[in-house]
Amino acid sequence: MSSHEQQARTLVEALPYIQKFTGKTIVVKYGGNAMISEELRKAVMSDIILLSLVGIRVVVVHGGGPEISDMLKKLNHPSKFVDGLRYTDETTMDVVQSILCGKVNKNLVATLNRRGGKAIGLCGKDANLLEVVKKPVTKDGVDLGFVGNIVKVNVKLLQLLSADEYIPVIAPVGVDKEGQSYNINADTVASEIASALKAEKLMFLTDVDGIRMDPADPRTLISAISVSEIEELISSGVITGGMIPKVQGCVSAVVNGVNRVHILDGTIPHPIILEIFTDKGIGTMVHAG
Amino acid sequence: MSSHEQQARTLVEALPYIQKFTGKTIVVKYGGNAMISEELRKAVMSDIILLSLVGIRVVVVHGGGPEISDMLKKLNHPSKFVDGLRYTDETTMDVVQSILCGKVNKNLVATLNRRGGKAIGLCGKDANLLEVVKKPVTKDGVDLGFVGNIVKVNVKLLQLLSADEYIPVIAPVGVDKEGQSYNINADTVASEIASALKAEKLMFLTDVDGIRMDPADPRTLISAISVSEIEELISSGVITGGMIPKVQGCVSAVVNGVNRVHILDGTIPHPIILEIFTDKGIGTMVHAG
Amino acid sequence: MSSHEQQARTLVEALPYIQKFTGKTIVVKYGGNAMISEELRKAVMSDIILLSLVGIRVVVVHGGGPEISDMLKKLNHPSKFVDGLRYTDETTMDVVQSILCGKVNKNLVATLNRRGGKAIGLCGKDANLLEVVKKPVTKDGVDLGFVGNIVKVNVKLLQLLSADEYIPVIAPVGVDKEGQSYNINADTVASEIASALKAEKLMFLTDVDGIRMDPADPRTLISAISVSEIEELISSGVITGGMIPKVQGCVSAVVNGVNRVHILDGTIPHPIILEIFTDKGIGTMVHAG
Amino acid sequence: MSSHEQQARTLVEALPYIQKFTGKTIVVKYGGNAMISEELRKAVMSDIILLSLVGIRVVVVHGGGPEISDMLKKLNHPSKFVDGLRYTDETTMDVVQSILCGKVNKNLVATLNRRGGKAIGLCGKDANLLEVVKKPVTKDGVDLGFVGNIVKVNVKLLQLLSADEYIPVIAPVGVDKEGQSYNINADTVASEIASALKAEKLMFLTDVDGIRMDPADPRTLISAISVSEIEELISSGVITGGMIPKVQGCVSAVVNGVNRVHILDGTIPHPIILEIFTDKGIGTMVHAG
Amino acid sequence: MSSHEQQARTLVEALPYIQKFTGKTIVVKYGGNAMISEELRKAVMSDIILLSLVGIRVVVVHGGGPEISDMLKKLNHPSKFVDGLRYTDETTMDVVQSILCGKVNKNLVATLNRRGGKAIGLCGKDANLLEVVKKPVTKDGVDLGFVGNIVKVNVKLLQLLSADEYIPVIAPVGVDKEGQSYNINADTVASEIASALKAEKLMFLTDVDGIRMDPADPRTLISAISVSEIEELISSGVITGGMIPKVQGCVSAVVNGVNRVHILDGTIPHPIILEIFTDKGIGTMVHAG
Amino acid sequence: MSSHEQQARTLVEALPYIQKFTGKTIVVKYGGNAMISEELRKAVMSDIILLSLVGIRVVVVHGGGPEISDMLKKLNHPSKFVDGLRYTDETTMDVVQSILCGKVNKNLVATLNRRGGKAIGLCGKDANLLEVVKKPVTKDGVDLGFVGNIVKVNVKLLQLLSADEYIPVIAPVGVDKEGQSYNINADTVASEIASALKAEKLMFLTDVDGIRMDPADPRTLISAISVSEIEELISSGVITGGMIPKVQGCVSAVVNGVNRVHILDGTIPHPIILEIFTDKGIGTMVHAG
Repeated sequence: MSSHEQQARTLVEALPYIQKFTGKTIVVKYGGNAMISEELRKAVMSDIILLSLVGIRVVVVHGGGPEISDMLKKLNHPSKFVDGLRYTDETTMDVVQSILCGKVNKNLVATLNRRGGKAIGLCGKDANLLEVVKKPVTKDGVDLGFVGNIVKVNVKLLQLLSADEYIPVIAPVGVDKEGQSYNINADTVASEIASALKAEKLMFLTDVDGIRMDPADPRTLISAISVSEIEELISSGVITGGMIPKVQGCVSAVVNGVNRVHILDGTIPHPIILEIFTDKGIGTMVHAG
Repeated sequence: MSSHEQQARTLVEALPYIQKFTGKTIVVKYGGNAMISEELRKAVMSDIILLSLVGIRVVVVHGGGPEISDMLKKLNHPSKFVDGLRYTDETTMDVVQSILCGKVNKNLVATLNRRGGKAIGLCGKDANLLEVVKKPVTKDGVDLGFVGNIVKVNVKLLQLLSADEYIPVIAPVGVDKEGQSYNINADTVASEIASALKAEKLMFLTDVDGIRMDPADPRTLISAISVSEIEELISSGVITGGMIPKVQGCVSAVVNGVNRVHILDGTIPHPIILEIFTDKGIGTMVHAG
Repeated sequence: MSSHEQQARTLVEALPYIQKFTGKTIVVKYGGNAMISEELRKAVMSDIILLSLVGIRVVVVHGGGPEISDMLKKLNHPSKFVDGLRYTDETTMDVVQSILCGKVNKNLVATLNRRGGKAIGLCGKDANLLEVVKKPVTKDGVDLGFVGNIVKVNVKLLQLLSADEYIPVIAPVGVDKEGQSYNINADTVASEIASALKAEKLMFLTDVDGIRMDPADPRTLISAISVSEIEELISSGVITGGMIPKVQGCVSAVVNGVNRVHILDGTIPHPIILEIFTDKGIGTMVHAG
Repeated sequence: MSSHEQQARTLVEALPYIQKFTGKTIVVKYGGNAMISEELRKAVMSDIILLSLVGIRVVVVHGGGPEISDMLKKLNHPSKFVDGLRYTDETTMDVVQSILCGKVNKNLVATLNRRGGKAIGLCGKDANLLEVVKKPVTKDGVDLGFVGNIVKVNVKLLQLLSADEYIPVIAPVGVDKEGQSYNINADTVASEIASALKAEKLMFLTDVDGIRMDPADPRTLISAISVSEIEELISSGVITGGMIPKVQGCVSAVVNGVNRVHILDGTIPHPIILEIFTDKGIGTMVHAG
Repeated sequence: MSSHEQQARTLVEALPYIQKFTGKTIVVKYGGNAMISEELRKAVMSDIILLSLVGIRVVVVHGGGPEISDMLKKLNHPSKFVDGLRYTDETTMDVVQSILCGKVNKNLVATLNRRGGKAIGLCGKDANLLEVVKKPVTKDGVDLGFVGNIVKVNVKLLQLLSADEYIPVIAPVGVDKEGQSYNINADTVASEIASALKAEKLMFLTDVDGIRMDPADPRTLISAISVSEIEELISSGVITGGMIPKVQGCVSAVVNGVNRVHILDGTIPHPIILEIFTDKGIGTMVHAG
Repeated sequence: MSSHEQQARTLVEALPYIQKFTGKTIVVKYGGNAMISEELRKAVMSDIILLSLVGIRVVVVHGGGPEISDMLKKLNHPSKFVDGLRYTDETTMDVVQSILCGKVNKNLVATLNRRGGKAIGLCGKDANLLEVVKKPVTKDGVDLGFVGNIVKVNVKLLQLLSADEYIPVIAPVGVDKEGQSYNINADTVASEIASALKAEKLMFLTDVDGIRMDPADPRTLISAISVSEIEELISSGVITGGMIPKVQGCVSAVVNGVNRVHILDGTIPHPIILEIFTDKGIGTMVHAG
């Protein structure tokens, strides 16, 4: 097949998707390794700007674990973990907020803007975007401190900004009725925002290429799967271990009104564009069924 | 380069063009061999619909010579040519109008609509779109009959239709102040409409691949050329013969406010999309310089 | 009564109707003898333009029988009739489409535009205006060829054009899902379009002056009649013969949402204006009940 | 000529005027004998409502002399005249305002509304419509009391009301910066309001049928005359006496931007409609030249 | 408390009320002693203009008893009262309309406009604002003449004017289907207009400071009271005599959709502003429940 | 003067200012001691929300010095000052950005939102709000590191947010073309943003009560002063020392299009409201002259 034929085929395949998604909202959860490599970060930022150029409304939710630990270490403040989750005391919360909302968030924004985007850095305190309550102490007496559960998402600000082609970039910090800050899980933030926006798509950029029938064999990657099929795969033991909470997050978003949820490998170049604009995609897409 | 890399490269290249041309007007002159082959016609129609899908305003001008001759022959009416131009008497004009506006035009419209387009068939008599006067008898006494020169283009109707995502398809028949019909050259119609619409692009789908430095060598195809460079190439004898009126039509459109004029080979698949959405394109683009 | 008194009386009578019908849609079916005489055609066109001037939305549906037969004769193609209906083979359909959509339609448009109208010539293929299926072969094995039954009318285009003061002029040719053309009865087209547009009025310009209690006596013309009264007149044998399908068409349009349907004599001057703007009118008006 | 022919002719003549004047403003000065007869008042009110029905914006200015004198007489307050003009002391001004704004104005409004109009009664005090200063004492020491000269017309309120199809009916009472009321000449009010509104027409309903070349001969009525021709007729003594101030008012309005000023006989039925909607009209039309 | 502290406290208290009432409608019934004193009139007018300045839509309804009696006396026309209500014969009605609509109304308008307002004087005859029928003759044969009961309030005109920041000032004169004028009780007019406008507030400016538990003791003034509490106070004899019809008018307005009805002492300066913009207010507020 | 009289006087004085400033923009620079006391912060936040409630567009620019020094101390990073200005190395810039944009900014936002505001925290990196270049090294070789001079202010985002009643709260961190962050003087940021927005007012909340003729005597406070008068006071030695740069900042803002600039004592309660809504105000207002 000649180069022209390949180009034409790619474009003929892609253009209907562009029409389909123009004006629609896509929430991208961005974190982990995809965030660490300078080069990968550039390719992902480039994808986000391209989506925005063709009229797709993109909302980015990011994490930022390593930089928080770095700062706590510099301050000689102990990092305490309970059942694998960070215990967040007052000092830790101050550091989380400063680093996530002040450093990681605004630096991502600057990277997008330098490449032609119109990005704006927000957190859950802005316009009360993410209203939370303290995660309750468990029966076993486990208290995570300032870690919050989302009780309300106020998306009017996001809609205003998206309608004017701005790209909101959101740090996962919430606020309670007294104005107190809370740490929140970034995957949950992405999922709740996507549900509240009735997003067309929610994309998790991760370190794996999606759901595989055989985890050891990349050729068994599942391109599209329904919510009920996922439940079968969990029952039958195909999906196991750390993959279970990930896919349950996808299922929850679909159940709450997001049309499609994607798990993508954020460590290959241009993962978002390839997933959205090609028939086959590169990761796993979860749909209602 | 892997398939994913090629797809990503093509898309990263194409998306900025989509943003650039959304809401802009592109006039396509469609005729000759590209119109005869069923398969090529489908590929061209597909390109036009894809442009329309991503918000580009497309206006199509078509020709239709062979079907007119066929009908005249069936009616035993002689086809008379003067200096290579058809002499148009009253009977011929009747046939030209019936075949162009009633058969060729409406059939093109149906082909577009069947594939998902919103096409509408018009001619210069609709809303006085193309006001003409009779082409004057030459000094040598050559009188072409009902052949017209355009004196005014009324594009309000086209703008109304384009703004609502309709694709106007226009047969090259004009009207004078008395309501009399006239035959007009389709290339001229396309060029005048593109000028009146201040179109972003005017594309001639022809049987050649563009302007070549050496007509015999396809590797010498010129991708982009300015109006002044064209004049030099004519002076220096590089552009000769039948190519001269063609490129002069392009020059005239650019001078009258069309941003870019393209000469494309309509006999390769998807010529419009490849020209618009790739950096290099496949034909010759004429610009102001 | 002095001339001034007569004029004042006519105007005082007419002005409230103008207010009543401004912005409303009136569909005019135009065919038969009213279409043949040059002078009558001018008077009818003049009426249509005057309606348009005072803000009434006019849609014209035309026929064109004689010109089709003329062309078939010139091409030595036999005209075959089955039960009084034209059998439409492929060649005939080609001629019907060329003559109706290319010649008769565009010439009517030019006549309107020359007198100050803003007319546009369309057929059922434009924007899929008239979607049809082939009329089924009857139990008796009668197959009319490419003759269609309307299954859907897409009036968005007509509404767009009317809202901008254009006058759509429609040739009775439909299209099926494959893009194939079909011949359709013009009265049916007018009736279906009027229903789909929820038109205020549908006016049939015919060769008779309306429904008479005694066909031989013009003084027995019925000015206004309800659907149920028509049914009684058919039962009681007052309405007979060729008048029956005509009035049944009127009844059907009223039942399908057209407010008033009029049968008018198209061979007297200015029939439309006299019917609309005078209390008594000149023909027969059919209303719901 | 048959009745149908006459009706058709009247309508074909009238409809283009309706289009021409829809959305335009016509100011009617209404006073004198046309106001006294119950029957004539009904015919004039009917004309005003009909204009309003077809989308013409009508503004009415009225007089009311006899009712003021009646009331002053009942109150035993002397009516004093200086050079034929009423001297307006404080008591007189109170009576003028009460009768004009409270009785005559609101009764005219009720007559219009009862017949289907949407009339509203105003005077120059409402929204400071007519700002005046006291007419200065003349060199000869003549002081007319509370008689005002207009210094500013605030037409925003009239435009708001007209745009919503209300008919403003205006009593000729003005207001100065201190809130004091003043009597103003109604012809002047009509002329100033028409100028401020850039009205299409200003119509004076009077007791004469217009300007005649020979005052004694109704057949010498002038249908249309330019400002410069009027000046010639005054110079040459054709226009004399009480007619001079009348026609000078017309000239002044035309000079100040009113397109056409008409002098009509308000004592024949439907004078406004006959003047506007017939080619010949019934009175005299003054135009710029 | 320092002057700055007092000012800040007043403003901090007032600003939320401004936000709350911007764009809302407040109907003010203005009559009695508050209307007679020049100084009080100025303070009330000033309040109305200040409300209008901050975007509150004010509608004023006024009375005017003394001036009517004055004029009747000057005309030597007897004032006849039946059960304390004025018998309105034709002459009386003429005087009522002239004085209320022509004098009192337009003078109030001028006072407002001179101080920077945009007031317009209307009565129930304008745009059929107040449609009435004659109050029926009682069983005891009491006939009040041209005294009307409101049957319909047409508030579209008021809404148009208010939306454009005009202040309608309304005289309590209504009209029946024949165009006949009627005298109406001004409290009733205010209440009906407030209901029809779904006003936020209806304020009666009276000669008392509100409802008191002990009429003799100003310290027992009730700031806020519900409809049901009023009924109890009437049952238990706390509200008695002339106060009963007054508070029943308030109850009726609340029942018909007015959010709050206030009884205020119009004889202290700036009563409206103090009632609206302070927490405690100065009069009695009646609310639903 | 009774309490009612005082309240009425305050309100009558304030309401016209509300009308005057509704829809206008007021930029508040907030820093220093006014920011440290919890109680003062609440009073200032309350003022900002009240302004927003009555439709005034407020933009807040804040400082935050002490918290930056605290964090640097905790990190054992030396604070270096050159000519009284902080030298900003890479580590310091990181801390400045984290603390200003992540902690101080978002906490102010939460305080506003908890009290009913709709605040959003931004810095100069969001939507490239504040484009800067590095402050050049002086002739004496003084290099302040990452300290920036503003070259462009992009206020479209602020306008979008203000139009929808959001309160932008801005941290003084800018960005260069490479995406690098820079420290900027907060007074300068406030002044440049006010100029770019053509703000009605710029208010500096400081620790002094304004400009005094005699710095030692609070009774010599100047309520209003023109730009040229300021220059005279500097020339004549009335304004001296640290007050000079402050008032020069005011002068510069006025010269660049801000209508009024105010210097206020942020340590008295409700300073903003008292300055805006009282005739006399509490600080010094600088105007063009």
